[in-house]
Amino acid sequence: MTAPLAPLCGRFEGLLHSYGVRVYHEDTDATAVVYHATYLRWFERARSDILALVGIDQPGAIDRGEGYYVVSEMAIRYLASARLADALVIETRCDEVGAASLRMTQTAMLGDKRLCEAKVRIGFVGPDGKPRRQPDEWRRAFASITDGTER
Amino acid sequence: MTAPLAPLCGRFEGLLHSYGVRVYHEDTDATAVVYHATYLRWFERARSDILALVGIDQPGAIDRGEGYYVVSEMAIRYLASARLADALVIETRCDEVGAASLRMTQTAMLGDKRLCEAKVRIGFVGPDGKPRRQPDEWRRAFASITDGTER
Amino acid sequence: MTAPLAPLCGRFEGLLHSYGVRVYHEDTDATAVVYHATYLRWFERARSDILALVGIDQPGAIDRGEGYYVVSEMAIRYLASARLADALVIETRCDEVGAASLRMTQTAMLGDKRLCEAKVRIGFVGPDGKPRRQPDEWRRAFASITDGTER
Amino acid sequence: MTAPLAPLCGRFEGLLHSYGVRVYHEDTDATAVVYHATYLRWFERARSDILALVGIDQPGAIDRGEGYYVVSEMAIRYLASARLADALVIETRCDEVGAASLRMTQTAMLGDKRLCEAKVRIGFVGPDGKPRRQPDEWRRAFASITDGTER
Repeated sequence: MTAPLAPLCGRFEGLLHSYGVRVYHEDTDATAVVYHATYLRWFERARSDILALVGIDQPGAIDRGEGYYVVSEMAIRYLASARLADALVIETRCDEVGAASLRMTQTAMLGDKRLCEAKVRIGFVGPDGKPRRQPDEWRRAFASITDGTER
Repeated sequence: MTAPLAPLCGRFEGLLHSYGVRVYHEDTDATAVVYHATYLRWFERARSDILALVGIDQPGAIDRGEGYYVVSEMAIRYLASARLADALVIETRCDEVGAASLRMTQTAMLGDKRLCEAKVRIGFVGPDGKPRRQPDEWRRAFASITDGTER
Repeated sequence: MTAPLAPLCGRFEGLLHSYGVRVYHEDTDATAVVYHATYLRWFERARSDILALVGIDQPGAIDRGEGYYVVSEMAIRYLASARLADALVIETRCDEVGAASLRMTQTAMLGDKRLCEAKVRIGFVGPDGKPRRQPDEWRRAFASITDGTER
Repeated sequence: MTAPLAPLCGRFEGLLHSYGVRVYHEDTDATAVVYHATYLRWFERARSDILALVGIDQPGAIDRGEGYYVVSEMAIRYLASARLADALVIETRCDEVGAASLRMTQTAMLGDKRLCEAKVRIGFVGPDGKPRRQPDEWRRAFASITDGTER
C-alpha cells in the first residue's frame, strides 16, 4: 500500500505552522533565483493551509457572500535567494488576533537559513470589500493558535 | 502636452489585431528565457483587448451573471524563445464564429520571427460553467472581424 | 513523532505518475474558477517532480550549461473547471522517448472527473536554445517509465 | 498611418514616473479583485521601464555577469481594490540613491484613488547574489531623477 498524496501539506508543531514548498520554473526568473513576488504566493498558500487546518471554510464564506480575509499590510525583508529545485519551508506564527484583523509573521527557510521574512496584517472584509468584524468562530480559531507573546 | 498613457494598447489593421508586450522579470524563468505558460497570459490579454475594442463588456457580463468566454482548446507550438526586455507583438485573427464558440489564431512575434503560435477555441459558458449560445450582439461583433477564410 | 513535510509530493504507481495540487487564490481568476494557464504550471511541476524521481538533475545541467528540456508543443483540452481549495491530482504518462524529444499525456483530475488534458511534446535544447540529442542517461531514465503503448 | 504600438508605455513628468496597466484575468483571483501579489509584478514592470528610460541596460548586465538590482525590502499597504478591466497608473518616485541601494515609493492609482502603496528598497548585487556598489553610471542615472526630498 502506498502513502496518500499530500496536497494539504502543512502542519503545526505547537503554535508554529510549517508548510513545504519546492522551487519550480514558474517561481524563478532570468536571474536564476526565485522572483520576489513568488514569496507572497507561498505565504498565501501557507495561510490558506492554516485556515483549512483550524476549520475555517473560507471558500464557502466567499461563495455565500459572508466575507473573507485580505492582506492589508506587509513588511517584507529579502535576506537570501533560493534556486530551482530547492526545498523550502514556510514558517508561520499568528502574533495577534483583533476584532477585525490578524497579525502574523511568516518566514521562508532553506534549512536553517532565513530567505525572506514578512510581517503581515490581515483584515476581514465583507463582499463589498469594506472592513468588518471577523466571525466570532474564526476569531476563536485563530486565538487558539496565538499565545499573545509580543515578537 | 504629453501623450496619454496607453494601457489599452492593441489595435486592428484590417482584420489583424496587434498587441504589444514587453518581457519583464515575471515572464522569464531560470533558463533566462520566457516561461512557456507566459504566452497564454499574453494571448489572453490580447483577446481581452479585442473584446474591449469590439465593444463587448465582459467584466459587466460576469458581474451580472450572464456568462463569459473560456478557452476550451489550445494547440500551441513553441518555435523560438524570447528574453528579458524583448518587445513582442501578439497577433490575433478570428478564424471562425459559431453559435457558442470562436476560433482564433494567435502568434507571438519578435520582429518577423515567430516565437509561439496557438490555435485557440473559445466557448461561451453561463455562470454555472456550462456551454451556452453566445449573445447575438457578441457573435455579430466577432463576425465583423472575421472574413471566413480557412487558415 | 510527526510525519515529514512533503514538498516533493508525487509518486509512481506502475508507469503512472500522480502529483497532488491544491487550488490556492493565485490559481484562480475573477470568474471564480482556475485560470486556464494555471494548468500549465501544474503540469510543469509534475514533470519536474518526475525528473527528480527518475534521477535527472536538471537544475545542475542548466547551471553547467549542458542543456535542458523545453515544451515544444502542447495540445490542451479544458473539460471542466476547478474551484478554490479543490484538491486535484495531476496524472502523467510518458508516451514516447525519442533521440531529442519526449511525448507525454498529462491530465488534471478532480476525483474521477477529468478537468484538463494535455498532449505535450518536450524537446531537449542546448544552452543556445537549439535542439540537440538528449543525454543517453536521461533518455534511458525516461525509457524506464515508458511502455511504448500507443495512446 | 497608424500610431505605433506601445509596449514601453511609461513616461516621466518631472521626477514622477507614470506607467499604465490594465487589469486582466491573470491579475485577479476568486474574490473578483486583484490578487495582492499582482501589485508587486506591476511595480517591477514600472521599475524596469524606468531602467530602460534612464539608459540602464540591465538585461545586458545580467548576461555579462556584472550584477543586477534586487528588491531587499518592501513595506506595502493595500488601501482599496481593483477589478477586471480597470485601467490603473503605477506612479514611481525615486527617494534616495545610495552607494549600493535605491529607495523608491510606488503607488497604484485608479483615477485619483490610491489602491496600493509601497516603500521599496532596492539593492545592487553581483552574479553571486552578494551586495556590491552599483555602477557609477547607474547611480548617476538614478540621481538625475531624484531630488533628495524626504517623503
